[in-house]
Amino acid sequence: MMRAAVIGATGYAGAETVRILADHPEVSLSMLTSRQYAGKPFSSVYPALTGHVDLVCEAYDPKRVADAADVVFMALPHKLPMELVPELLEKGKKVVDLSADFRFRSVEAYERHYQPHTARDLLDRAVYGLSEVYGDAVRGADLVGNPGCYPTCILLPLIPLVKAGLVDRRSLVSDAKSGVSGAGRSPAVGILYSEVTESFKAYKVTAHRHNPEIDEVLSRAAGEPVHLTFVPHLVPMSRGMLATTYAALTGGADEGKIRDCLSDAYADAPFVRLCDRDRLPETRHVRSTNYCDIGFRVDAAAGRLVLISAIDNLVKGAAGQAVQNMNLMMGCAETAGLRRVPFPV
Amino acid sequence: MMRAAVIGATGYAGAETVRILADHPEVSLSMLTSRQYAGKPFSSVYPALTGHVDLVCEAYDPKRVADAADVVFMALPHKLPMELVPELLEKGKKVVDLSADFRFRSVEAYERHYQPHTARDLLDRAVYGLSEVYGDAVRGADLVGNPGCYPTCILLPLIPLVKAGLVDRRSLVSDAKSGVSGAGRSPAVGILYSEVTESFKAYKVTAHRHNPEIDEVLSRAAGEPVHLTFVPHLVPMSRGMLATTYAALTGGADEGKIRDCLSDAYADAPFVRLCDRDRLPETRHVRSTNYCDIGFRVDAAAGRLVLISAIDNLVKGAAGQAVQNMNLMMGCAETAGLRRVPFPV
Amino acid sequence: MMRAAVIGATGYAGAETVRILADHPEVSLSMLTSRQYAGKPFSSVYPALTGHVDLVCEAYDPKRVADAADVVFMALPHKLPMELVPELLEKGKKVVDLSADFRFRSVEAYERHYQPHTARDLLDRAVYGLSEVYGDAVRGADLVGNPGCYPTCILLPLIPLVKAGLVDRRSLVSDAKSGVSGAGRSPAVGILYSEVTESFKAYKVTAHRHNPEIDEVLSRAAGEPVHLTFVPHLVPMSRGMLATTYAALTGGADEGKIRDCLSDAYADAPFVRLCDRDRLPETRHVRSTNYCDIGFRVDAAAGRLVLISAIDNLVKGAAGQAVQNMNLMMGCAETAGLRRVPFPV
Amino acid sequence: MMRAAVIGATGYAGAETVRILADHPEVSLSMLTSRQYAGKPFSSVYPALTGHVDLVCEAYDPKRVADAADVVFMALPHKLPMELVPELLEKGKKVVDLSADFRFRSVEAYERHYQPHTARDLLDRAVYGLSEVYGDAVRGADLVGNPGCYPTCILLPLIPLVKAGLVDRRSLVSDAKSGVSGAGRSPAVGILYSEVTESFKAYKVTAHRHNPEIDEVLSRAAGEPVHLTFVPHLVPMSRGMLATTYAALTGGADEGKIRDCLSDAYADAPFVRLCDRDRLPETRHVRSTNYCDIGFRVDAAAGRLVLISAIDNLVKGAAGQAVQNMNLMMGCAETAGLRRVPFPV
Repeated sequence: MMRAAVIGATGYAGAETVRILADHPEVSLSMLTSRQYAGKPFSSVYPALTGHVDLVCEAYDPKRVADAADVVFMALPHKLPMELVPELLEKGKKVVDLSADFRFRSVEAYERHYQPHTARDLLDRAVYGLSEVYGDAVRGADLVGNPGCYPTCILLPLIPLVKAGLVDRRSLVSDAKSGVSGAGRSPAVGILYSEVTESFKAYKVTAHRHNPEIDEVLSRAAGEPVHLTFVPHLVPMSRGMLATTYAALTGGADEGKIRDCLSDAYADAPFVRLCDRDRLPETRHVRSTNYCDIGFRVDAAAGRLVLISAIDNLVKGAAGQAVQNMNLMMGCAETAGLRRVPFPV
Repeated sequence: MMRAAVIGATGYAGAETVRILADHPEVSLSMLTSRQYAGKPFSSVYPALTGHVDLVCEAYDPKRVADAADVVFMALPHKLPMELVPELLEKGKKVVDLSADFRFRSVEAYERHYQPHTARDLLDRAVYGLSEVYGDAVRGADLVGNPGCYPTCILLPLIPLVKAGLVDRRSLVSDAKSGVSGAGRSPAVGILYSEVTESFKAYKVTAHRHNPEIDEVLSRAAGEPVHLTFVPHLVPMSRGMLATTYAALTGGADEGKIRDCLSDAYADAPFVRLCDRDRLPETRHVRSTNYCDIGFRVDAAAGRLVLISAIDNLVKGAAGQAVQNMNLMMGCAETAGLRRVPFPV
Repeated sequence: MMRAAVIGATGYAGAETVRILADHPEVSLSMLTSRQYAGKPFSSVYPALTGHVDLVCEAYDPKRVADAADVVFMALPHKLPMELVPELLEKGKKVVDLSADFRFRSVEAYERHYQPHTARDLLDRAVYGLSEVYGDAVRGADLVGNPGCYPTCILLPLIPLVKAGLVDRRSLVSDAKSGVSGAGRSPAVGILYSEVTESFKAYKVTAHRHNPEIDEVLSRAAGEPVHLTFVPHLVPMSRGMLATTYAALTGGADEGKIRDCLSDAYADAPFVRLCDRDRLPETRHVRSTNYCDIGFRVDAAAGRLVLISAIDNLVKGAAGQAVQNMNLMMGCAETAGLRRVPFPV
Repeated sequence: MMRAAVIGATGYAGAETVRILADHPEVSLSMLTSRQYAGKPFSSVYPALTGHVDLVCEAYDPKRVADAADVVFMALPHKLPMELVPELLEKGKKVVDLSADFRFRSVEAYERHYQPHTARDLLDRAVYGLSEVYGDAVRGADLVGNPGCYPTCILLPLIPLVKAGLVDRRSLVSDAKSGVSGAGRSPAVGILYSEVTESFKAYKVTAHRHNPEIDEVLSRAAGEPVHLTFVPHLVPMSRGMLATTYAALTGGADEGKIRDCLSDAYADAPFVRLCDRDRLPETRHVRSTNYCDIGFRVDAAAGRLVLISAIDNLVKGAAGQAVQNMNLMMGCAETAGLRRVPFPV
């Protein structure tokens, strides 16, 4: 059994990582840290897990973490991981970081949108953990920058089409919708129940930090600079994310070619489900799973593709993909711990 | 006092029309019809209105309706109104029809997307009741085709920009999101609570019947054929609609010109609120009101405009705009009965 | 026009008071205060009200309040009002306090459950503003302690029955359920969207501070000490409250006598609706209204009454009843500003 | 591997049974039937399960069912199972029936609340499948009447206390709250999203058919007739059930004795979690699990116990308990297939 630690275990992404690892056949959860709940049983913060996780949250201590764990999941806000990860790597640990700190190759891009980077030399060593696309690199990595939820949802359907030249790279628009858990568990007026229920809004329009992340990865796929117009929205639901991505078809592209391209790209991907023609993704179909469901339609009159993709933002958009990456890094089956049967409703 | 009848009073749009008219200072509600609930007090179907509306629902009888009412609101599914309206007009009644039957100028367009039209000669006589745009024509009309909810939400911000040539007519995409009440009150699996809550989906992608309605009106505004790519989505909320509309800016268009254009277009419109730069529309801001809130951002790197508009689908998207049109037709103040203070939460 | 100030205008109860007063035919809103948002337009905090309320929030200044207003609504957390109210009364203002500070007659009871009282001499002068029960006293009052939401919902159906001796005073249990807005707008983990949606719980079981308030008023009605077992629950909805109250019937009490008693007690009460036999209260029937809907059933096999009452916690449970009390205090019609037609859905 | 058939697989309880069995280590799902969806892949009705369940729904054919399965789950509306079960038993199949048809011992009680019973002779043979209480009988049974959701939630905490004489049997009141999935998947106005969201109501007050089921089982436990006052409510959530049960303490009963009694009763029950003093059950803590969480408080001033219990109505209240019973009947570990780690949020 591998021993795993979750740093920042009481935020939503951390807790979901704990949930998955507690069911993982090759992992023993050995340490949970939480600044806010240090000294308290994890199950007192998340009583649902009473009887399943008996660990007490601890304050972060690099030595203790290194002693206790073979692989470390960092589920902290950005800025903290880049300070803590170098020491863990030195001690020979494998690290999956769920923050933005190791997602960028371009220091400039990171620093423009976040803050000065204090572990720049690790950016080349880190692998961007979009498992289906960069899985080979993840297998050999000791540091994975786990992708953002929006980038995961938008990039999975888009990258194969961009690579194949089936869509016009200057025409890309993604209108994305997320459940509220994506905003985390720190109290703020904007995510109170009474402020969210029965309402819908856009936020950070053309100003969300996942936009440069998407652009960098798309540009790498395209081999030239690509910019996608990105507008996130907040849905009155806890979990789930759906992106509706619009792109002009290039000459010769049609429904059949789009389907073939996506079908080929993900023929062997256990967590991508390309919907048949009679179905489109809905967030409830992927809720609590590591799937990315993909569907599409063509607006022939406009020569435009409408791509629809759905994930659970806390699973494939965070904790699930993190465990999928760990599986790849550690030589487990890619699906280990991630194939529970989804709920019908 | 004008006497008003609501035909199909127990569907959501009908009931909302009743709600507004019951508070209208110049209207006396004189008749409610309902096939399903004929013989039952309206307040037994909608107990919230106990003590406010004492009418008993009746079966539809054109003679009785004509005797009882000066103005008639048709809140029936399409197909029925085109069969009933001619007789009401002959009897000298003013009619606001909330269905699609009198929204189109093109018989072909209507028949392609709905069914054969049995009152074709009325299509020229009917006025498309997008109050802020066609208000002058509405004032002189005796038959108004009240716009669909999606067209209202999408067209209000878009028409002035299209007319002014600030956006590229071939680039238009509208990603729209609606609450569930838009699907009506007839039981169906897809709108059951357990199927909708905590989920999000697109539906009728590039195949919704509001698309040709939008295209016809946009084409009229542009003076040339326009097609917009339209994708509706279902939000787990009862009321509210938000459209995020994307358009390439034409040469010379910028944020200032967009703002000026919208500001000029709606300077005197009591129900359009152009958001200041520090705010964007949210559906809760317009819930239970007749407002259309409009905001926008420019993605300068892409030369693309992001227009955001929000309405309450049952009010400005149906019953409220119907009453606004009645106000114009009957010479009341445009805002009569429609200016209740919105709820903070 | 009376001039009204709302102190603490940006909490939910305060904002709802603003909403109602902005539509009140005899009131001019003259001042809004908010510690947190001083200097900001009220409509920037609650954008829904843009175009309806143009006031800027101010810091509290007793002299400015006294100059600006004839009647003052205190919508602050308890403890603050008892410090501020004495000066306002000295300056001849009428005050409706929505906190607990002036609800109790017994200093001991208040101090046991809250904290030391700093304006004890006002407790006798203050009138408990359960409008339907203490309306006569409210008419002559200059200080009203506006009841808690739970006490309003539970006491209205229960007081007439207790007075009439139709229920056994030792058998009273009230199982009450509230929407989340009752918890206010201060951010806390427990009221985040993701913590509340799709869940249901009891809280403060037998330990809620509305329990002694209920007991004191019931005891006054009964003329002897009464204690009710009170268990509040949190419902995943924003507005609304429903109480299911259980009581053993005394000898001779039956369904007819219960109905007659309630019917007589509230024959002239414009905001109490006793449901016919074929209906029971639901919170949506009273949403956004000042109604208290009351219904009941008898479990004959057990000799037990099941009383059901529903209110909107922010209206009849707070702001609406406060305005109703103001109407009584100032000699307006009791229903002024409070009779908007309810929403069907 | 045992072969299992689910009859009525496309209702919510049936689909949830499918979900659990698809993950069960000792079961092979061999047949699904559905009248409405016969001929369609199960995963086309519940797309979430695409890739997990590949069976096509069939019409019910007793011979084919008997050939295909060792154990049969009946997830049909009452009345149908009593017609179908006798033949299955004759063919030597083990049957778990999720309807009410085999829950009662008293034919009279069943017939008073349902309809004439056509398989009366099986009522003695059937075992009431409240696993924690009647597990020993279940082990030897070939026909189990799986309990209703409300009875499961209310009886588990109450039976040990009634047996121990710690509560007054004439004082019992249970105020229960259920999510909407309990009403099934057949379309009806009352369970449409827009009718349920943001509202709360009681229904079938003192008239729900689970009341005689509860009374019969309680009476059996007490050894004398017991009647509990039962009031169910509808919560705007899909899954989850919480019961707040009130009972007068008998002489000598106190918090310690209550805790000891419950603790002893369920010391070895893997799916009952007695909450520590600092926690009370919430439905989200048991969502998607087979747990029944139990907590309580004593209102000392009233001498009254407040018992709180929570389950997932589709799992412990239906499909999960059915599988738990199957585990007992077939000699599997009681927890087989039922111990997935719960979701933190």
